[in-house]
Amino acid sequence: MTFEEKLERLAMVAVHVGLGMEAGKTTPQQVMMTAPLEAAPLVRKITEQAYQAGATLVTPLFSDDECVLARYRLAPDASFDQTNEWMAEGVAKAFRGNTARLAVAGGNPALLAGQNPAKMARANKAASIAMKPAMEMITRHDINWNIVAAATPAWAKLMFPNDTEQEGVAKLWEAIFATSRVLGRDPVAEWRAHSNNLQKKAAFLNERNYKSLRYRGPGTELELGLSDGHKWLGGGCIAGNGIPCMPNIPTEEVFTTPHRERAEGLVRSTKPLSHQGTLIRDIEVKFAGGKIVEAHASEGEEALRRRLDTDEGARRLGEVALVPHSSPISASGLMFYNTLFDENASSHIALGQAYSTCLHGGDTMSKEELAQRGANESLIHVDWMIGSGEVDIDGVTQAGAVEPLMRKGEWC
Amino acid sequence: MTFEEKLERLAMVAVHVGLGMEAGKTTPQQVMMTAPLEAAPLVRKITEQAYQAGATLVTPLFSDDECVLARYRLAPDASFDQTNEWMAEGVAKAFRGNTARLAVAGGNPALLAGQNPAKMARANKAASIAMKPAMEMITRHDINWNIVAAATPAWAKLMFPNDTEQEGVAKLWEAIFATSRVLGRDPVAEWRAHSNNLQKKAAFLNERNYKSLRYRGPGTELELGLSDGHKWLGGGCIAGNGIPCMPNIPTEEVFTTPHRERAEGLVRSTKPLSHQGTLIRDIEVKFAGGKIVEAHASEGEEALRRRLDTDEGARRLGEVALVPHSSPISASGLMFYNTLFDENASSHIALGQAYSTCLHGGDTMSKEELAQRGANESLIHVDWMIGSGEVDIDGVTQAGAVEPLMRKGEWC
Repeated sequence: MTFEEKLERLAMVAVHVGLGMEAGKTTPQQVMMTAPLEAAPLVRKITEQAYQAGATLVTPLFSDDECVLARYRLAPDASFDQTNEWMAEGVAKAFRGNTARLAVAGGNPALLAGQNPAKMARANKAASIAMKPAMEMITRHDINWNIVAAATPAWAKLMFPNDTEQEGVAKLWEAIFATSRVLGRDPVAEWRAHSNNLQKKAAFLNERNYKSLRYRGPGTELELGLSDGHKWLGGGCIAGNGIPCMPNIPTEEVFTTPHRERAEGLVRSTKPLSHQGTLIRDIEVKFAGGKIVEAHASEGEEALRRRLDTDEGARRLGEVALVPHSSPISASGLMFYNTLFDENASSHIALGQAYSTCLHGGDTMSKEELAQRGANESLIHVDWMIGSGEVDIDGVTQAGAVEPLMRKGEWC
Repeated sequence: MTFEEKLERLAMVAVHVGLGMEAGKTTPQQVMMTAPLEAAPLVRKITEQAYQAGATLVTPLFSDDECVLARYRLAPDASFDQTNEWMAEGVAKAFRGNTARLAVAGGNPALLAGQNPAKMARANKAASIAMKPAMEMITRHDINWNIVAAATPAWAKLMFPNDTEQEGVAKLWEAIFATSRVLGRDPVAEWRAHSNNLQKKAAFLNERNYKSLRYRGPGTELELGLSDGHKWLGGGCIAGNGIPCMPNIPTEEVFTTPHRERAEGLVRSTKPLSHQGTLIRDIEVKFAGGKIVEAHASEGEEALRRRLDTDEGARRLGEVALVPHSSPISASGLMFYNTLFDENASSHIALGQAYSTCLHGGDTMSKEELAQRGANESLIHVDWMIGSGEVDIDGVTQAGAVEPLMRKGEWC
């Protein structure tokens, strides 16, 4: 298969599986697509596939790492509380108008390493506040959305520091194609089968209806309570607009909403976290009453602390996800420094905003009802990896019985 | 001077002269910058200059010719009346919030040659309607805005078809640097002097207060009435937000608002017009009572006709501009196929929307008052070139005296 063909297949999977768009079947929609400049070849393929699938207008919004860096280097200090609300409002309006959302990931994961953490925290907070209405529509899955990845030189350099740029980018593309499951005979059909498997796993967990999960591993001794009336999800979902979509490509997880007040104990991250341009390594936190009361990291600790200080909900959990250690991403042995991939190599938890879709009837609940069930609220949603071949996980039933769920990172 | 230094100077002129931004002097503003993907090196330089001049946030919005073409090739026919209103509203909101506007021109001037004219007309009309609130703020100069150019391979190919891509792009960059007046000792100071010269020429024309202009040349025999209380402008202006800006770089014109009902006779274009991706050559039109009653073109006639059919005002004039035939752009001998340059090589007229700033007191007039003075209203504003070394222009005073203004394309 040529590179062009693989790129075409990735675009096809992003549009047909990711966004679930089908000419003549789904209501014609606009598509808004964010992407790094260097991803233009994939953006063009996706644009073509989207139009062929009935898209009425595709609007690419390219970002440029250099322009972002120029801000940190040169912009007046007072300006870091500003954001482009006009764009955030435009995006929210697009979503309200049933525009599908495609995000091409691939920016430099370490772009902002070494930048002033206070400026980053202020800029992130301003952007999060402005984007909140749009992000709520994403977390509620009001519309069909998808994230897919493109190899870029800066990202490849971080993953393959000893290769030439050309070799590194080629290796990263191959890793993306393989883990995004586009190399088989019929990628779209294979994605549907994969999605079914994840949905079956979620159905099993829903049938068990555990009260909490217990994690044991190096540096980890955690009891994590699930929200009342929680629902496990995995694979594809039906968006609020009725379109079946696959939010993440790749995805290997089943996930649900933990109870915001019921995490107790210690947990240590098992992979570095690349968060908004900063690498955070060896996170160790202590939970009491669901809240992080101690937090450390061997690298990026200040960025972590500032993120935890964003708001009241930033120190509590919004998501728990289970991923077998033998997932294709984990099997690749690669550290991607990108959450889309790394979170699918390992069981993980997320600080911050919960998904209301992970509660039975959550879609129509008020904020008060969601809070009563234990769903967390925050401007942030930061996934980090806590699973590995050394971590065991048990399920605790409502009656208090303890059942083995994962041993050495694999499903029992 | 290295290429980098020239690029830096163009960016400096765009920010300090074009947008008039000065750290510590002008109110800190956001900047919204549109640009073709291939202009990223200039976009980065401008971003740096803008932050150094006090910009609070620069948002680049890149466009990709390939994605635009994919739409014409593959999108469903019914979708061509759609546009991204959400983006148009975001842009209007940005302008209302005092965001400065920078447009980097440089897309392929012949991009849409050969595409279906009906689809183009529908897409253009939908976009024009959505962008109207934002465009009104631009034509009223509510905010500081500027257009500057970057060389791109497709544009260079059209101008230098016999050169390699690399040679063509290099030649186009040199032409842009020279005509944008950034190669002198102190480009910012030289731009201020150039602006003064244009303002003096406008002051002379305002003092003469002609009733109409008479054009004579091959295929041209036109009497063009000026609006009542018209005002000639040229060079820099003070935007509604109080910031002195230079909308076009380069600019060589003085211009005003003609009377929408007072053009009579024949006029022939003297250069090809590149309009929204279509080349229109050898335009010949007949005016009666200010309205185009016959229109022909040797190439692109259908695109011209469809544009004329956009609305009632599309067949009437919204601008008249005088440019000496010896301007640096004209002297370069190059046909740029880009209105920003070609209109500054030649006297020209524009179909469609008039500038209210070209009427004494026009800024605060109602639509009815503007119409009474003769100012035209339309969704379009299309400049085309009617001056050359073979065209003579006279001014007709309010008392009916005829005074020579330009002979063989030069000021008398």
